[in-house]
Amino acid sequence: MSDLRKDLEAIYSRAISSVSPVSAVRNYLRLENGRLLAGNSIDSAKEFDLIKYNKIIVVGAGKATAGMAKAVEEILGPWISEGLIIVKYGYTEELDFIKTLEASHPVPDENGIEGARKIRELLLSADENDLVISLISGGGSSLMPLPPENIPLEDKKKATDLLLKCGAGIHEINAVRKHISLVKGGNLARAAYPATVINLMISDVVGDNMDVIASGPFVPDNSTFEDAGKIIAKYKLQNSIPSGISDYINLGAGEKIDDNPKHGDVIFGRVVNYIIASNMIALSSAKEEGENSGYNTIILSSLFQGETENLARMHSEIAKEAVLSSNPASAPLCLLSGGETTVRVRGNGMGGRNMEFTMHAALHINGYKNILIASVGTDGTDGPTDAAGAFADGTTVLRAEKKGISITDYIENNDSYNFFKQLGDLIITGPTNTNVMDIRIILIK
Amino acid sequence: MSDLRKDLEAIYSRAISSVSPVSAVRNYLRLENGRLLAGNSIDSAKEFDLIKYNKIIVVGAGKATAGMAKAVEEILGPWISEGLIIVKYGYTEELDFIKTLEASHPVPDENGIEGARKIRELLLSADENDLVISLISGGGSSLMPLPPENIPLEDKKKATDLLLKCGAGIHEINAVRKHISLVKGGNLARAAYPATVINLMISDVVGDNMDVIASGPFVPDNSTFEDAGKIIAKYKLQNSIPSGISDYINLGAGEKIDDNPKHGDVIFGRVVNYIIASNMIALSSAKEEGENSGYNTIILSSLFQGETENLARMHSEIAKEAVLSSNPASAPLCLLSGGETTVRVRGNGMGGRNMEFTMHAALHINGYKNILIASVGTDGTDGPTDAAGAFADGTTVLRAEKKGISITDYIENNDSYNFFKQLGDLIITGPTNTNVMDIRIILIK
Repeated sequence: MSDLRKDLEAIYSRAISSVSPVSAVRNYLRLENGRLLAGNSIDSAKEFDLIKYNKIIVVGAGKATAGMAKAVEEILGPWISEGLIIVKYGYTEELDFIKTLEASHPVPDENGIEGARKIRELLLSADENDLVISLISGGGSSLMPLPPENIPLEDKKKATDLLLKCGAGIHEINAVRKHISLVKGGNLARAAYPATVINLMISDVVGDNMDVIASGPFVPDNSTFEDAGKIIAKYKLQNSIPSGISDYINLGAGEKIDDNPKHGDVIFGRVVNYIIASNMIALSSAKEEGENSGYNTIILSSLFQGETENLARMHSEIAKEAVLSSNPASAPLCLLSGGETTVRVRGNGMGGRNMEFTMHAALHINGYKNILIASVGTDGTDGPTDAAGAFADGTTVLRAEKKGISITDYIENNDSYNFFKQLGDLIITGPTNTNVMDIRIILIK
Repeated sequence: MSDLRKDLEAIYSRAISSVSPVSAVRNYLRLENGRLLAGNSIDSAKEFDLIKYNKIIVVGAGKATAGMAKAVEEILGPWISEGLIIVKYGYTEELDFIKTLEASHPVPDENGIEGARKIRELLLSADENDLVISLISGGGSSLMPLPPENIPLEDKKKATDLLLKCGAGIHEINAVRKHISLVKGGNLARAAYPATVINLMISDVVGDNMDVIASGPFVPDNSTFEDAGKIIAKYKLQNSIPSGISDYINLGAGEKIDDNPKHGDVIFGRVVNYIIASNMIALSSAKEEGENSGYNTIILSSLFQGETENLARMHSEIAKEAVLSSNPASAPLCLLSGGETTVRVRGNGMGGRNMEFTMHAALHINGYKNILIASVGTDGTDGPTDAAGAFADGTTVLRAEKKGISITDYIENNDSYNFFKQLGDLIITGPTNTNVMDIRIILIK
């Protein structure tokens, strides 16, 4: 089994390194003789002749944005005229040309507003002779908040809370939030126009919808002020929502304020968008590594979102089938999947989605000696722990029993961290400075 | 989409017909010049020279057993000396050499006991010059009950109820039940010894464990009287369980009664066991059909057992990934799976596992035009309805809305039958006279 574990470690390491901010930026930006090539292969790359631009401005926000900025500086160096990024407190890199502002995540603060205002001003000052490089990653929405004048941040938070509590869907919540922001829903693209924009994104959302990543500051908005108003009416929030917000949305719905820019708007003729890192990019790299190590390798899906417990059962049932009948393919087999699941909380133990997944899988593959399963958070942190995930195999339950540890007790208490810690089966990577959600790896020999 | 539907119909039809009692028996029994070949290919078939046997005796029980008997008569005809099978009321076939007794399922009755006693006597009368052909299918356990003398059927039912209520696992319940029966747990093999036995089984259990199918009347029992006693003690049922049962198990644990025959027992030197139809056999036939129709075809697993709702979501997430990134394989793609799931009951509508699966899938693939999903009960009956399952595609939700039908209302009410009935998307096959649980088919073009 130790070989399987070594192979599995190589697979997740490769996956995570393929989505590191530095790798991701390098894969999508190259400088050749003063021409900037953007795109993930030479064939489809777009060319930007840097000599033609007055200024090259770098902006961005997100938990992985410092690393992205570092990579951009390594590529462009003194070509960069000025820049400002907003990162989470402590998530900094040493930069020479781009300024860094630290702000609060996941609850926004005044530092974030200050940074968002400065970024917007920088973009408003840009003209058609300027090139903007935008670096967006998960957390960007909280780190770069900018409500319209007269709407305090507190009111925005209150509106979000009300929408969450009344049972509104995530798309509905986003539609409202995008209409009380001068950043989200394409508003930074509007501010930058007529400058040219290269928008690079690290996706931390299932399905990689660009307008969802950090609420899409450079991406067309499909929703309207009218939609936002209808959603508030649908959940009967007219009287409870702060009046500044409902007034602003009413003005917009009455066409007194320009709606967020839409698909086809001239603004987006000047913007190129690239998702430079995503769950599927991590899985594809994992697949390459699996194949190089001699495994038949299958990516099941990057879109898994259901309950962790059921997903673990389902992955185990596929793994067991592979042992019994060589379906979906014969061993040596590597099954990969990704996404972000939910956890049914029963107890008050310590853990995260990935360790929960692995603990449930351990129960289902009990006795199957040729299966090794791991689930790993690509950010290196699973729940409020120092572990990224854990390993399980057909001996996990038995090894626990021999130490007097009952897996069902730990399952009842959601205490996956302490379960695997005692077995020495935690996966510890340290912070990876990126986040493309979770990946699961199953090896069958 | 109509082509997809035609292809899908061909796939499930092929799958179901491959596990029909007649096909299944024909695949495993052939008569050539007075020699009976048993096995699924000529290479591995065992030969039985019929002229050497005094009597050829056919016995069996189960919902699909009449069809199996019919096929055996077509193959062996007058070679059959005598025979008796027990089937569910109404599940008969016209037979010439084998007698049929009808009994109650799923709650056993006196007819079942009468039949079981006669079958046991027939087997006890067989000697080393006789050949027994046993035909076992789902439901056989209820249809062929035979508690030891002085234990009334009522007491056996009471014991099962107590075990179910106290939270005993299915393996624990089976261990007890096998030790208060003269049929289950290999006891019919013991009765038949020293006759030769060809035991043909249609598996309706996940994982195809032979000792679980109809409680394994011709299969070694892994559990002991001592285990049964410990299980009763574990759940503190000593005082509530009928005393005849606890006395019998105590006698057995004290070695006053022979335990059920175990693996390696001389008895099983005379028995050959074949699973002639199973969920995986149905899926493999579906795979052949899918490949013949030009689809890249993948069997995910035959072992899925979790919650229907979550499994539907997971299947949909794999299908959507195929559309987005050509993983796990490129279109045209056929994804197959099987097993038997549970349903989270919320409302009092009409439906079954398969229609529930399809209804949830419809929600998840909404808008994906190139996906067609179906889930089908191989017995032709999904829940208490005349449908075997249903179809869903990316237009299902919209087509329903246009008729004023809200899918979420029908989901809340578990009313999948009426949902699909109104759309004309039910799958109606009629009773198939077999049962290897459920199959799911997803086509992506």
